[in-house]
Amino acid sequence: MITVERAKRVVLENSSGLTQGAESLPLTSSLGRIVSKDIKSPCAIPHFSNSAMDGYALRHRDTKGASLERQKVFNVIESVPAGSVPKKKVGRNEAIRIMTGAPMPLGADAVVIVEQTREAKSERRKAKSEEFMRTFKELKRWENVRRAGEDIRKGEVVLRKGTLIRSQELMMLAALGMSSLKVTRRPRVAILATGDELIEVKSKLAPGKIRNSNSYGLYGSVLSAGGEPIILGIARDNSASLLRAFKDALRRKIDILLVVGGISVGDYDIVKDLLKQIGTKMLFWKVAMRPGKPLAFGMIGKVLVFGLPGNPVSSTMAFEQFVRPALQKMLGYIGPAHFVREAYFEENFEKRKGFRYFVRVKLRNEDGKFFARLSGPQGSAMLKSMAHCDGVMVLPEGIAKVSRGDKVNVQLLN
Amino acid sequence: MITVERAKRVVLENSSGLTQGAESLPLTSSLGRIVSKDIKSPCAIPHFSNSAMDGYALRHRDTKGASLERQKVFNVIESVPAGSVPKKKVGRNEAIRIMTGAPMPLGADAVVIVEQTREAKSERRKAKSEEFMRTFKELKRWENVRRAGEDIRKGEVVLRKGTLIRSQELMMLAALGMSSLKVTRRPRVAILATGDELIEVKSKLAPGKIRNSNSYGLYGSVLSAGGEPIILGIARDNSASLLRAFKDALRRKIDILLVVGGISVGDYDIVKDLLKQIGTKMLFWKVAMRPGKPLAFGMIGKVLVFGLPGNPVSSTMAFEQFVRPALQKMLGYIGPAHFVREAYFEENFEKRKGFRYFVRVKLRNEDGKFFARLSGPQGSAMLKSMAHCDGVMVLPEGIAKVSRGDKVNVQLLN
Repeated sequence: MITVERAKRVVLENSSGLTQGAESLPLTSSLGRIVSKDIKSPCAIPHFSNSAMDGYALRHRDTKGASLERQKVFNVIESVPAGSVPKKKVGRNEAIRIMTGAPMPLGADAVVIVEQTREAKSERRKAKSEEFMRTFKELKRWENVRRAGEDIRKGEVVLRKGTLIRSQELMMLAALGMSSLKVTRRPRVAILATGDELIEVKSKLAPGKIRNSNSYGLYGSVLSAGGEPIILGIARDNSASLLRAFKDALRRKIDILLVVGGISVGDYDIVKDLLKQIGTKMLFWKVAMRPGKPLAFGMIGKVLVFGLPGNPVSSTMAFEQFVRPALQKMLGYIGPAHFVREAYFEENFEKRKGFRYFVRVKLRNEDGKFFARLSGPQGSAMLKSMAHCDGVMVLPEGIAKVSRGDKVNVQLLN
Repeated sequence: MITVERAKRVVLENSSGLTQGAESLPLTSSLGRIVSKDIKSPCAIPHFSNSAMDGYALRHRDTKGASLERQKVFNVIESVPAGSVPKKKVGRNEAIRIMTGAPMPLGADAVVIVEQTREAKSERRKAKSEEFMRTFKELKRWENVRRAGEDIRKGEVVLRKGTLIRSQELMMLAALGMSSLKVTRRPRVAILATGDELIEVKSKLAPGKIRNSNSYGLYGSVLSAGGEPIILGIARDNSASLLRAFKDALRRKIDILLVVGGISVGDYDIVKDLLKQIGTKMLFWKVAMRPGKPLAFGMIGKVLVFGLPGNPVSSTMAFEQFVRPALQKMLGYIGPAHFVREAYFEENFEKRKGFRYFVRVKLRNEDGKFFARLSGPQGSAMLKSMAHCDGVMVLPEGIAKVSRGDKVNVQLLN
């Protein structure tokens, strides 16, 4: 039996990135995927200096000393809508009317916003057809101007390899004109349930039979972790059925094989022996955790093989602590596996020393502080307390209990 | 100009649940969707009392007084594999070998785990063909037994309307034999970018033109909020183009229309007038927030219409504060719009009183404490600091600055 930390290290040492299998995707399909290599900007953003506001482009020095009492008057020589380009150059005491985003005219180095200007009659009584404006605002150089390249320089690395594509990343990539991008391949994860007691979800219950719930829970977990789940159905507790299923799994070019059930100590637990028989190098088969202790891990060639416990809560916990981190490493994602929330425990709970416990809890927020309670009975077959939990409270090996008011760490699930 | 809170109230008062449009989905497709009505369990879980461990089913009273020194001997009368049903009844000092999950035999009310037993020769020297085991363990009634219905009772509400389907919910629903379930319809959200300055992502940059990044950012945001995004492309800054686009949008049976750009004060901002012209009841058009101030909201019939600012950061902030909550209400999801993290700010930042600020920050975790720094310059057109942020620090209306060491709340993005 090895510790959770040691087991995790063994799993991660044997998980290697799938970056070579990167695929090119259209921008909108890349949401939630992982960037497979550093992305450099093909252009500067902004591409040209432009106005940050609706207003008038002018020379900042012409506003020097402006105030409510001493307003400055400008000759408006042109009006540039968004999407158009100014044709004239701004000279002394001249201004060009400009919309947010419109390119700065030559000669101008600041924009006065429209709310700080008034229409004006010329005090110098030039031709009546001309337009004038006055302002009380003294401007700084480049005030209300977005200068070319101030956000992103051409050639700059804008997204590092390993970055998760969220909507914000999509937005920036669209602005850079990247209509497609390279993301890491999704690891293929085969899910094989085993057991003579299992029936399909659609089947009627019969004495001694239970429905295969593990395959569906793991399907969701694999998907949420960025993998591509492949449900292989149910293998029976005999060598022929299991061997057939293992071979079927390995033919499908998988990266990970999850075998659920059949790894305890009992007579009918032949899975581990058969895995060895087909060439699996077993690396560990018991972890000091609860639930999830009967957890086997090995490799067939480059394929990671997890023998997960048959109890659905145990299989989920084993997935969260070992398979999810392995998937993230394969995806090249450099981020935490779980969001961890600090909370105050509101009950008393005893545990066995030497084991790391994962306890299902519900969280309650009171004025920004979080409080955790058990989401129900903690038996490793208890589905309801699993479905009703916000996350799992992680209790370290060294302690024998947690008491009301103790600070605990809760790994959020989804 | 109204406050963020007041604006949110107006939006939510006008967002109604789409539960009537519920759809039935196969179990695996329901991941990430919202349950549209309370789900009652069609059966008990466990469906039959069964063993929680590999071991021997027996009568607990026959182990009374057992200890290492005074071990109790049992006649093993049957062996039941998982998936099978015991045929015999357990009598005094009898035991049936049983696997985890196998049904409890009649007569038995406890299970001793296999590790706490040894093979035994009969001390009573019965027939040699018989099998015996001995144990040092004194058992309690129902020890190591999962009793029928102890997890879920038949008819019990297992998932409330409004629950998000995660992998744990999938698992429980599979165990209940629910191969399909009813979830709320995804709200249809049309995204219309406006502006003569906009070009498509694939187009070459030209003077005065920028690429349409808002549609892609909003596409991702709508998807991540549970909506169905419909990108309508770009409308130009003239009545004909805009009216055509609005009518096109409304023909598509949408629930929300997002019009991006064209709602500022300038001459070319005709969107708001046209929206009124086609029958939009405008409810507000400026919110005391930064970025995101020029935000219009109204209704055309039952369709929510948001006029979002054209700056990509502003449109994202407006989406997060108003559109995401509206989508969640439509979906019937009762959960927070954002995950909020408390952090210590590591810089100094000045703001204008009277406005709620949303400031892009990066978070750093040090021994469980979180520290926030600006993710870059905060201009509302700055895409890089948006892509590089972990979330937005929310600064309330009443304050004029935050200083190094101040505790702040950060809304995480994705």
